[in-house]
Amino acid sequence: MKVPSAAISRLVTYLRILEELEAKGVHRTSSEQLAEEAQVTAFQVRKDLSYFGSYGTRGVGYTVPVLKRELRHILGLNRKWGLCIVGMGRLGSALADYPGFGESFELRGFFDVDPEKIGRRVRDGVVEPMDVLPQRVPGRIEIALLTVPREAAQEAADRLVAAGIKGILNFAPTVLEVPKEVVVENVDFLAGLARLSFAILNPKWREEMMG
Amino acid sequence: MKVPSAAISRLVTYLRILEELEAKGVHRTSSEQLAEEAQVTAFQVRKDLSYFGSYGTRGVGYTVPVLKRELRHILGLNRKWGLCIVGMGRLGSALADYPGFGESFELRGFFDVDPEKIGRRVRDGVVEPMDVLPQRVPGRIEIALLTVPREAAQEAADRLVAAGIKGILNFAPTVLEVPKEVVVENVDFLAGLARLSFAILNPKWREEMMG
Repeated sequence: MKVPSAAISRLVTYLRILEELEAKGVHRTSSEQLAEEAQVTAFQVRKDLSYFGSYGTRGVGYTVPVLKRELRHILGLNRKWGLCIVGMGRLGSALADYPGFGESFELRGFFDVDPEKIGRRVRDGVVEPMDVLPQRVPGRIEIALLTVPREAAQEAADRLVAAGIKGILNFAPTVLEVPKEVVVENVDFLAGLARLSFAILNPKWREEMMG
Repeated sequence: MKVPSAAISRLVTYLRILEELEAKGVHRTSSEQLAEEAQVTAFQVRKDLSYFGSYGTRGVGYTVPVLKRELRHILGLNRKWGLCIVGMGRLGSALADYPGFGESFELRGFFDVDPEKIGRRVRDGVVEPMDVLPQRVPGRIEIALLTVPREAAQEAADRLVAAGIKGILNFAPTVLEVPKEVVVENVDFLAGLARLSFAILNPKWREEMMG
């Protein structure tokens, strides 16, 4: 059974909802409650979970901590991932100070090519030149947050790939070319603005989308 | 014909590729070239465009500036959208300084609830209290970039909605509840990290995804 990419995104949403329920002291939930919070149908919730096994009991629902643990396991969040930030401009610096990476993600490196930025202290570390990537990445850093300007993004990605990176969270507004063993996720807020623009101008389309 | 949400995202990618081709002085392109750059199939490119009309000539392809103009028109980027930033912390400040909003998006307001931030100069403006949203939004600001902390996001969204906002680009890691006339796009990089985590651990799934 082919798991659609959108289902993975929804699992992340369900996990977030479960964490909020747990924080409120709620111990049991249902596909209906998860659906309402996630703004999808209960059928969708059950289908998304069914790709990965059988969860919950008919008429009883789900135990919040159990389903949370299962979703963390499915998503690979029950382990620790080493992150680095490549590009220590405004956005990279904001991310370096971001307090919400949680227990699954740990910042382990900060890189830039600008001599003015190299050596600057950030969080628990210091900004290093890109040249040391081959020494820093293997066995220690799996994922890079790429926050360099668009025109520098492909070269930085090439250097990360050569150093052995496994995944790139790309904030630069460009399509990166990487070997197929390397995974890229784009965080592209200009694309988000363009989608908003389309959706605002096409209310009928939105109604269709929401079924 | 129901246009899938992913097709809209791909149109944004095609537009970006066309802009890069134009910058390089390329005048003609093909579904094959667009497909290669966007890392999809040529069939997919033609299908995505076919939802909105008939573009290109068999055997001749597309004229870059013409297709670019058409895509900008489809996405509503041939007009000017008024933006505001709500939440002037690190991320909001980074976005206020971001040079790449382009001709379709214009920052017209900066808001926060923190008295220490209110009055601070940013870009061409000044940070104002949230209370003035009802005076600033109507007829002037259509889209808000919401960069407040998670626990403040829903209340800020409610105030934006009450002021007449049409769309919210939500950077807070939470699902916002808004009336159906208001559009929300989530820019959620923690969700991006979770999807990377899943994809890195499931190379077989990735292969299936890439067909």
